[in-house]
Amino acid sequence: MIIQLESKITEQAKAKLLEKIKETGYKTSEVRTQFRSYLVATGSKEFDIRSIGNLPGVADIHRVSDPYKLVSRKWKVEDTVIDLGDGVVIRRGDLAMMAGPCSIESEEQVLKTINHLKDNGLSIMRGGVYKPRSSPYSFRGLGIDGLKMWHDLAQENGIKIITEVMHTEQIEEMYPYVDIFQVGARNAQNFNLLDALGQVDKPVMLKRGMSGTIEELLQAAEYVFSNGNEKILLCERGIRTYETASRNTFDINAIPILKDKSHLPVIADPSHGIGIRSYVEPVALAAVMAGADGVIVEVHETPERAASDGQQTLDFEEAGRLYGKMRGVMKIRNS
Amino acid sequence: MIIQLESKITEQAKAKLLEKIKETGYKTSEVRTQFRSYLVATGSKEFDIRSIGNLPGVADIHRVSDPYKLVSRKWKVEDTVIDLGDGVVIRRGDLAMMAGPCSIESEEQVLKTINHLKDNGLSIMRGGVYKPRSSPYSFRGLGIDGLKMWHDLAQENGIKIITEVMHTEQIEEMYPYVDIFQVGARNAQNFNLLDALGQVDKPVMLKRGMSGTIEELLQAAEYVFSNGNEKILLCERGIRTYETASRNTFDINAIPILKDKSHLPVIADPSHGIGIRSYVEPVALAAVMAGADGVIVEVHETPERAASDGQQTLDFEEAGRLYGKMRGVMKIRNS
Amino acid sequence: MIIQLESKITEQAKAKLLEKIKETGYKTSEVRTQFRSYLVATGSKEFDIRSIGNLPGVADIHRVSDPYKLVSRKWKVEDTVIDLGDGVVIRRGDLAMMAGPCSIESEEQVLKTINHLKDNGLSIMRGGVYKPRSSPYSFRGLGIDGLKMWHDLAQENGIKIITEVMHTEQIEEMYPYVDIFQVGARNAQNFNLLDALGQVDKPVMLKRGMSGTIEELLQAAEYVFSNGNEKILLCERGIRTYETASRNTFDINAIPILKDKSHLPVIADPSHGIGIRSYVEPVALAAVMAGADGVIVEVHETPERAASDGQQTLDFEEAGRLYGKMRGVMKIRNS
Amino acid sequence: MIIQLESKITEQAKAKLLEKIKETGYKTSEVRTQFRSYLVATGSKEFDIRSIGNLPGVADIHRVSDPYKLVSRKWKVEDTVIDLGDGVVIRRGDLAMMAGPCSIESEEQVLKTINHLKDNGLSIMRGGVYKPRSSPYSFRGLGIDGLKMWHDLAQENGIKIITEVMHTEQIEEMYPYVDIFQVGARNAQNFNLLDALGQVDKPVMLKRGMSGTIEELLQAAEYVFSNGNEKILLCERGIRTYETASRNTFDINAIPILKDKSHLPVIADPSHGIGIRSYVEPVALAAVMAGADGVIVEVHETPERAASDGQQTLDFEEAGRLYGKMRGVMKIRNS
Repeated sequence: MIIQLESKITEQAKAKLLEKIKETGYKTSEVRTQFRSYLVATGSKEFDIRSIGNLPGVADIHRVSDPYKLVSRKWKVEDTVIDLGDGVVIRRGDLAMMAGPCSIESEEQVLKTINHLKDNGLSIMRGGVYKPRSSPYSFRGLGIDGLKMWHDLAQENGIKIITEVMHTEQIEEMYPYVDIFQVGARNAQNFNLLDALGQVDKPVMLKRGMSGTIEELLQAAEYVFSNGNEKILLCERGIRTYETASRNTFDINAIPILKDKSHLPVIADPSHGIGIRSYVEPVALAAVMAGADGVIVEVHETPERAASDGQQTLDFEEAGRLYGKMRGVMKIRNS
Repeated sequence: MIIQLESKITEQAKAKLLEKIKETGYKTSEVRTQFRSYLVATGSKEFDIRSIGNLPGVADIHRVSDPYKLVSRKWKVEDTVIDLGDGVVIRRGDLAMMAGPCSIESEEQVLKTINHLKDNGLSIMRGGVYKPRSSPYSFRGLGIDGLKMWHDLAQENGIKIITEVMHTEQIEEMYPYVDIFQVGARNAQNFNLLDALGQVDKPVMLKRGMSGTIEELLQAAEYVFSNGNEKILLCERGIRTYETASRNTFDINAIPILKDKSHLPVIADPSHGIGIRSYVEPVALAAVMAGADGVIVEVHETPERAASDGQQTLDFEEAGRLYGKMRGVMKIRNS
Repeated sequence: MIIQLESKITEQAKAKLLEKIKETGYKTSEVRTQFRSYLVATGSKEFDIRSIGNLPGVADIHRVSDPYKLVSRKWKVEDTVIDLGDGVVIRRGDLAMMAGPCSIESEEQVLKTINHLKDNGLSIMRGGVYKPRSSPYSFRGLGIDGLKMWHDLAQENGIKIITEVMHTEQIEEMYPYVDIFQVGARNAQNFNLLDALGQVDKPVMLKRGMSGTIEELLQAAEYVFSNGNEKILLCERGIRTYETASRNTFDINAIPILKDKSHLPVIADPSHGIGIRSYVEPVALAAVMAGADGVIVEVHETPERAASDGQQTLDFEEAGRLYGKMRGVMKIRNS
Repeated sequence: MIIQLESKITEQAKAKLLEKIKETGYKTSEVRTQFRSYLVATGSKEFDIRSIGNLPGVADIHRVSDPYKLVSRKWKVEDTVIDLGDGVVIRRGDLAMMAGPCSIESEEQVLKTINHLKDNGLSIMRGGVYKPRSSPYSFRGLGIDGLKMWHDLAQENGIKIITEVMHTEQIEEMYPYVDIFQVGARNAQNFNLLDALGQVDKPVMLKRGMSGTIEELLQAAEYVFSNGNEKILLCERGIRTYETASRNTFDINAIPILKDKSHLPVIADPSHGIGIRSYVEPVALAAVMAGADGVIVEVHETPERAASDGQQTLDFEEAGRLYGKMRGVMKIRNS
């Protein structure tokens, strides 16, 4: 049960409301986000919610049977819009295209990528400065200094930055330089990280876990939302199955299901979703066709020489072609 | 190694050829299809294939390192075309739309479905008369009598029939009434059935196994081909994963991979691929976008009252809308 | 709902019984096995089963909510015993040890294996004469002649034979030479084969499908049982997962679950269950510890030279050690 | 390649050594653990390792082709022993039995559990004070105060504590009260947490990820080891598969594989591994039979009333019986 509070609810009215909910045997969590205040009440007893809905200070009340509440479309019907400023907006009906290398490597590389983005009319650049690597002996990214360098170049060029945060301690120092915090598949259920990102006022993109369910992804989003941050993007990036012909199995089903279950925007990551450069394009186009609100693609001037694994990375020419085709798909999707 | 023989190769030349291959330590299978004769030689030694390619009676020779040979694109570059007669052709660049109920139930139901197909410009009808059911106590289909009835109505209306064959003993009696034999997911590795269908001169559509790999699907096709039947369609119908939000996980990756690895046409089954009626459309459109040569869809006048499970079945109106949208997708795919 | 009929129920009494069940809206299947006659009624309405249980001719009646009925322990509490004759009996509390090569290769190989079995006190030999192979170009077994040769040697030596049947047409010719028909993982849902084996009076061992659920395995058994054959063994042989460190993932959980859900004996196949020779022993011992009623093991005099894949095959010495250890485990299990 | 350094290697000798390795094109990581100093060099060129092994200051050198190095048995043949003090030692050949509730709830509950452990001769208690929960609205544990209370009671009674740490920031405050830090399945690839635990001198038990591979588990261990902490336990706790008859699929194969690939002790968690109370015992016994060095079991006086999910929790009587049986299994395993 979600109770949206009026912004000017009195302390007295709130106390009475909490008292009343307690009587029903429900447990209540108070949620204050950037935009609104809510009470999320969980319990199992059936009762007439109007007895609470009619109390002073209650703006709206909804029953939500899903294990996730505030991110459910059962409660909030209109789609969430993510506004990055400077006219860069992620919303249903548009297609947010994000592209960039696996790892930020050098000033030269960043500049070339930025130029590639600008040439193709893109405004959001991806790239890793903290890299989760399965081996401790692998390159783990340029860290905060790389991010600062990247940020300077991006800002000059009107480009927004999405990059992975691996650890709560990184949030504060990354904050000034990041437009969207990305949570990687391996941290999909790192609840402390999710809690902490809920206290930030910048958007967060949550990647589905390696073998995470759709429900778990939505519950991860609930963590962020219930800690105060409503600006969440969900990302399908392929799941782990028995099939070895591709690196992951891109779960195309997840796109319409997530769009239906939640009001949050859904981003597709075809690069990881199939993991093989020559097949990234058809998967990207399919994801757009299935209703994705955005696509995040790995691109590098010379994929063969990328610092991190470039097996799933497009070169500038391939990527340019893909952007154009995705725009074509959007036209029929919107027609 | 695939050695395509000249049609008028002499017995003497063939004997010499076999002798020569034997010397290399390779084992040879002779394959005679509706169209051509081949020798498929398997072994591990490296040698100059020209020493065999230059022998009399050899039309062409190719090294194929894949475990599947004759269905590999490494050997045959041009796409296989399946001609069902009366102008109904399945080929790359077109979109073969097949639709119909899970089970054939009655004359009335068949007629209504045929009219629906004709109204929408479709020429291939799906439907089951032998139904593989997990419980022995479930309805197992109308059998051969249902098929005959269906065939009469279909033929009058210029409609082609695709239906599942479960058992080698059914092939002969089904043969006159079937345009495409379908092998279901549960029989994906029923090698006796595959052998037997290889000896038939009608097309065979192979569904990927419940947890079959892409390689296993291609090897199943190799069974059919190497027994003499080149007219094969491959069908992606969703795989079994841990995810429970959908009935299966439609493996969108499989579409471009199969198109790339093999010259055979690839059909998508979005109905089973996601298994939830309201999400069939986006998955179907995505599959077309990813390159499918055809789509097979479950449709019923009243899905709620279908004899078999109608949870993934569209009604006529929903299906009609989908056909139109798929045609729209084909336009940009071909542009 | 399972209604066990009295052996001498009159036609009149049966007609009345069927009439009565029909009134409840349930559908009825008549099942006549080697031992008894049943009516299996499926439906969803709740009613007092005594109204049927009290009718003349009814020996016993049970409500079974599982999708499988006759193989469920909810109906039949005592364990099924499989008697192969000559004192060879598979039953709870004992450990049926079956061993032999992947493929039957030659008289010499069979004799050596038989001697190995006799030296170690085993009475059941496994081996394939019809081999399901993913590639059509692989060795597919010696066929019926190999089986006859094997049978002659086995009979002389008091050894029982378990071997795979792939196809209904093979049943009749194999029948005289086989003690247990095995259905392989790839045919786990070949319902025509299951139907046909239900009409045979020799035991059938059903392997779980490559990615078959426990419920599907039990429903496959229901196919055999409801066609008349109560002599069924269930076999856990590993499932397909994302893990590549082993060939399959032996589902140890399946052992106690199957023992609990069904009255049928449960056999473990550790050779396929892990697929790596050096690890077969610990998995076999674990399976026995978990409650398996039998174990089937691949053994060959020289695994490196086996006709089929020997990667999971023990040599005689390794196998001998394993039999001894399994007997040791049985001692504490029974204590 | 692992180069174990002599404890008194000179700076000059080390510099020369690093220089020499650099010449081969290998990258070197310096690892200093509680016990020893190493250089881990990764690269692909083949060369005679004696050219480095003979240099001054080198105690030992090994080629390790696995992606994990220091945790591999290819380098260190003898098993790692974890000494918790007061005679509590985890080592091959023994069976470390750990038991306790899912969540620490109250002083009374802790005391009852401690008495249960002492009655049964166990010395290690499990329990959660920080609980990773899929929903943000669930009980998340008593936190540090609960841990202190538990520690007081445990210490009085000679009981060691294993408990989950979710976050690097918790390590320091938990440190005085914990004997083994546990990393949960959801944090299996939380590399920052692994790094931080590598700098601690108390043992760390790593749970395999929900769908983590065996290799990933070993690489997680490599993170801890390469940061300086050699005291690591590996824990198999079931993986995520398509099967729904159990909550997870306990991967019995992982036990012998991990024991073979690594020198670290392997602990089995049958409670999560099958997730159903009535089947915990057979899975636990199977795991011991397969070679586990320890078992961790959920136990509660009244599982039905446990604060967290008690579906997989044994009561004191069931657990007591299990300990006895496990000891019985150890007897034959060691015989």
